[in-house]
Amino acid sequence: MLYFEDLTPGLSFATASITLSEQDIHAFAKQYDPQYFHIDNVRAEQSVFAGLAASGWQTSSVTMKLVVESEFGRSVANGLIGMGVDKMRWPRPTRAGDTLQACVEVLSGKRSSTRPEYGVVKLRWVTRNQHQEEVMSLESAIWVALRHP
Amino acid sequence: MLYFEDLTPGLSFATASITLSEQDIHAFAKQYDPQYFHIDNVRAEQSVFAGLAASGWQTSSVTMKLVVESEFGRSVANGLIGMGVDKMRWPRPTRAGDTLQACVEVLSGKRSSTRPEYGVVKLRWVTRNQHQEEVMSLESAIWVALRHP
Repeated sequence: MLYFEDLTPGLSFATASITLSEQDIHAFAKQYDPQYFHIDNVRAEQSVFAGLAASGWQTSSVTMKLVVESEFGRSVANGLIGMGVDKMRWPRPTRAGDTLQACVEVLSGKRSSTRPEYGVVKLRWVTRNQHQEEVMSLESAIWVALRHP
Repeated sequence: MLYFEDLTPGLSFATASITLSEQDIHAFAKQYDPQYFHIDNVRAEQSVFAGLAASGWQTSSVTMKLVVESEFGRSVANGLIGMGVDKMRWPRPTRAGDTLQACVEVLSGKRSSTRPEYGVVKLRWVTRNQHQEEVMSLESAIWVALRHP
């Protein structure tokens, strides 16, 4: 189990990888981001993406799955309780057939002033495709239980 | 159609609303955020959420759908092309049966220095439940085509 005290700045964890199909991209978009460049392969060619692109929200949500199921995600004492996300960027789109993998790095930790049994840990997530190109990055703050409150 | 010139600071737009069922919460969580407090109603009672809670990523993705399908989303000249998201917060969880509605406000606009036919518009999104309680807020920057480049 990983507690607040264990998450020292600089520690990093890799996730497994996942491949997104064209069907996955269409299905997410229909439910959460129904814009033509995420759904219609032909019209998407004429868009700013020059081809079918996954919703940025899908790239982020798929990354959440990878992080939750990683050794890191399964080891954090109380689960991944997010307080919020900053600096989320999608420097290039995820394409059908892309295989995504993420890396989580501990940026900093601070004991909570309001809840003495918890600390707040800042993480940086970076998601890359099979060409090692960044498709998403963000900074996330999570609550983590102290081993010795 | 709404172009860059039309999106002046202070303008705001409301979306329609959507109700999330327990099944919706379970289904999203299984695919994108498989933590017990999003899936297992009984164990969720013992979690920090004191009951089943939707993944924050689902609250955000559902808000994206509301915004895309709003009059605002359907009117922006080139669609909602997000550059990134900052200050995303989930001050309280979305619960099964909650009805969510969002409001989008224009914060600022700036012509792009690299792409003279586009501007970058900063928006603030706030999503509330049926009790008018905030469940999510974020700041988003989108590319918007100029009417008169």
